[in-house]
Amino acid sequence: MIWNRHHILSLEDFTPEEYNTVLQTAASFREVLTRRTKKVPTLQGQVVTNLFFESSTRTRSSFELAAKRLSADTLNFTASTSSLTKGETILDTAKTYLAMGTDMMVIRHREAGVPQAIASEMDRLNVRVGVLNAGDGQHEHPSQALLDLFTICTLLDPDRPRLELLQGKKIAIVGDILHSRVARSNIWSLTASGAEVHLAAPPTLLPQMFGEFVDTRSEERGARSEGDRGNHNQPSTVNCQPNRKLFLHWQIEPALQDADFVMTLRLQRERMAQHLLPSIREYHQLFGITRDRLQLCKPDVKVLHPGPVNRGVEISSDLMDDPQFSLISQQVTSGVAVRMALLYLMGGGKV
Amino acid sequence: MIWNRHHILSLEDFTPEEYNTVLQTAASFREVLTRRTKKVPTLQGQVVTNLFFESSTRTRSSFELAAKRLSADTLNFTASTSSLTKGETILDTAKTYLAMGTDMMVIRHREAGVPQAIASEMDRLNVRVGVLNAGDGQHEHPSQALLDLFTICTLLDPDRPRLELLQGKKIAIVGDILHSRVARSNIWSLTASGAEVHLAAPPTLLPQMFGEFVDTRSEERGARSEGDRGNHNQPSTVNCQPNRKLFLHWQIEPALQDADFVMTLRLQRERMAQHLLPSIREYHQLFGITRDRLQLCKPDVKVLHPGPVNRGVEISSDLMDDPQFSLISQQVTSGVAVRMALLYLMGGGKV
Amino acid sequence: MIWNRHHILSLEDFTPEEYNTVLQTAASFREVLTRRTKKVPTLQGQVVTNLFFESSTRTRSSFELAAKRLSADTLNFTASTSSLTKGETILDTAKTYLAMGTDMMVIRHREAGVPQAIASEMDRLNVRVGVLNAGDGQHEHPSQALLDLFTICTLLDPDRPRLELLQGKKIAIVGDILHSRVARSNIWSLTASGAEVHLAAPPTLLPQMFGEFVDTRSEERGARSEGDRGNHNQPSTVNCQPNRKLFLHWQIEPALQDADFVMTLRLQRERMAQHLLPSIREYHQLFGITRDRLQLCKPDVKVLHPGPVNRGVEISSDLMDDPQFSLISQQVTSGVAVRMALLYLMGGGKV
Repeated sequence: MIWNRHHILSLEDFTPEEYNTVLQTAASFREVLTRRTKKVPTLQGQVVTNLFFESSTRTRSSFELAAKRLSADTLNFTASTSSLTKGETILDTAKTYLAMGTDMMVIRHREAGVPQAIASEMDRLNVRVGVLNAGDGQHEHPSQALLDLFTICTLLDPDRPRLELLQGKKIAIVGDILHSRVARSNIWSLTASGAEVHLAAPPTLLPQMFGEFVDTRSEERGARSEGDRGNHNQPSTVNCQPNRKLFLHWQIEPALQDADFVMTLRLQRERMAQHLLPSIREYHQLFGITRDRLQLCKPDVKVLHPGPVNRGVEISSDLMDDPQFSLISQQVTSGVAVRMALLYLMGGGKV
Repeated sequence: MIWNRHHILSLEDFTPEEYNTVLQTAASFREVLTRRTKKVPTLQGQVVTNLFFESSTRTRSSFELAAKRLSADTLNFTASTSSLTKGETILDTAKTYLAMGTDMMVIRHREAGVPQAIASEMDRLNVRVGVLNAGDGQHEHPSQALLDLFTICTLLDPDRPRLELLQGKKIAIVGDILHSRVARSNIWSLTASGAEVHLAAPPTLLPQMFGEFVDTRSEERGARSEGDRGNHNQPSTVNCQPNRKLFLHWQIEPALQDADFVMTLRLQRERMAQHLLPSIREYHQLFGITRDRLQLCKPDVKVLHPGPVNRGVEISSDLMDDPQFSLISQQVTSGVAVRMALLYLMGGGKV
Repeated sequence: MIWNRHHILSLEDFTPEEYNTVLQTAASFREVLTRRTKKVPTLQGQVVTNLFFESSTRTRSSFELAAKRLSADTLNFTASTSSLTKGETILDTAKTYLAMGTDMMVIRHREAGVPQAIASEMDRLNVRVGVLNAGDGQHEHPSQALLDLFTICTLLDPDRPRLELLQGKKIAIVGDILHSRVARSNIWSLTASGAEVHLAAPPTLLPQMFGEFVDTRSEERGARSEGDRGNHNQPSTVNCQPNRKLFLHWQIEPALQDADFVMTLRLQRERMAQHLLPSIREYHQLFGITRDRLQLCKPDVKVLHPGPVNRGVEISSDLMDDPQFSLISQQVTSGVAVRMALLYLMGGGKV
């Protein structure tokens, strides 16, 4: 295993070896979590600071628990009670926590690029403080994508989760892809694995371009204008980057067809106010995951959602609670193990 | 000692043996709290999550400290900063913290029944996670009643606090009984002990019925309409449940007469807006605990209050601070010991 | 070394021996902070409660980290989520946390005298609970002044920081001195050291009197009315208290002239609304610390600020980030070491 990364900001340049290092390290921590005493002394005496400029109780709790189980001390900074209202800059806040003796920073901010900016400042100051992006604007949310990856790979081989297990699998990502940092990170990791990744969203919520990937919707647009909505078995495919297979769809059916995994995304209700969607009900009708729709997929298809779920919007309520299909609870559990692995690796733990 | 309870949701079905197990376990933890190092490794590596959908700094602090002194890790969820605003259900929140690896949940909610619903879900999922009701609506607040019980019994026999010590004692509960989950839990524990429990409240704040207990106010109502307010030595008594002695009064005097302990309840100021009370001042005049009123009680009477106190409303300010009468500070100290005992017992500790 | 103080409320009566005890103890803790495992078991099993009636994330984090590094458990009370809104008094809140088993209380309140009142109550109750003033109104902020002192003394002799190192040094304090608890505490410690302390502020932000010190502004007022603004080399001096050298100025130049250290203070924006200042811009022009202004000082002058900084108001933005001049980051680091020392000494640690 190899690991040379001091910050975890984006999955864009992650190598297969790095993915596998995370997966294997997380697997060993997952074993710790099954013990009665779910704690290891790895980060004893070190300080992990959660700088959450955008509030998120569940993600912060997951990181806090991961840090505590590595025996680190934790500090929580949340913007609402902060000196930011007092005119201090974000970098000043980060440097204050650095000067107090923080060893690692977990950062969430509603603007893309903030974790990167803080990481650059740490490097400029030549301090060995690791920065982990816990969600920045519509950019990336690497730990979420890594826990999704871990959840899927662990299902395929509990003892030895590894990237290669996804080769040839078909994965659908459904929902508000345009605004989703979760989708963005997942696209990097899943296409890196050799899986076929199919994105499905209403036109207003699908990016016009995606990195180096060509927009494939023109074909469907043609098809659609001809009213030919039935021809979904032959999804329009483009694969311009070697070894990355990404497909975009305006309808959900071609994405779900024979899919091994379906990832749904949280729909922010403000999209309605922004006139990007007519109504919650229509969204559920066209893009909600239901038992009926899952008939299109492989028989043993599994559904993921980053949470919190709008029941009856992105996914029908009963499906969410059905352990035959839903991996949502496993994702949360994976989250603690994967975040323990990330903090461990950033902290210079042996791989 | 016996203990087979995995959740602590209500005192309604608590047996004398269970009360005594709690009292004796709390007594041993109280001893720990007198040491310089007030910590035991009992719950090392376990996670206690405080899910406070209704905020309460003092109760949360008490549980947090109890958990820390058992060496557990703690997570705090408060509704204000939560994903509840994002459309997630309460059960979803609980299940998220379950999936993270929570071993015990301490739950407060403004609606009755929420802790019970979460406990049922945990049982349905067949997970060994204990749920403790830290106050649900106007239903129950078992840990408060147990710490009140422990405070009283410890006073009567510091070395061996036990339920039987209360046999034949007279205990008055005064105040907004109708809306009080504290009163409700205390009624179960105190009547179970064989004490005589006397409730006193204005008619608007006294329940019409109380479980299997018959309403005894009719007599007094008659007495009152005749203007006969002085005949308080002969309180109207009903005792329809074997071994449970509960008495209800519209005036405070018959409840205080020869009482060994007086429990006052917090008066929520919104009761005025709800037209259940004319004014704070009149309430204090009719139902406030004062030195004068205590003359009716036994000479060594003690006063309890679950806190926080509205000074000069439920109790006169100087009385609250008088260690000869007030047990308020001991209640807070008992709270940590009793909550340590409850977490210990729920966690499968030896009894 | 000597230490007999159970509370730390004010520096007014601190003796040189006490200052040196703090400095030496902090120096030994600073060494701990350079290790990989930055923790000592000194306060294991003890509870430090942060009672922050006025919110301050950075100061609370500093105390929380100091307590955790001494292995104490911490409780955080913040007024926004508190029972204060429920009618409880501040003393009641403090006594509740006392009864829970708090060993030390760190208190911040927007009113002067609150920590003193709580400390008196603890003494009256004859309990050995130490109270530390973490900022009370416009009165004092002793731990901030002690960390400033430690920062300066450590710069002058890293191995043996001591009060005497400041003898004969000139220190300017610039800004809103009238409303600053930081300035008030710093004046006590710095004048006690034998340094010359020069205060500079607009007339509206400078106190009319300062303890036993005579107002020296009359001379300058005269000078000013004659338009003689250039005569700054001869600052009007008064020194009525033996061994304390304090000088007050309406202009910044005489304060900066040959200064070894310059302390700037945070400007609260509400001063404008109070008509104490015409504009932020004029304030920066007249009292902001800039590279140009520092030409007046000693060549190796250093600048301090208690944070958070209003960049471009109290100090120019580039100067704040220049490690040649700015000690701001060292102050934050000193803060943790000094607060560890204070908690250690209050807790009865050997000196």
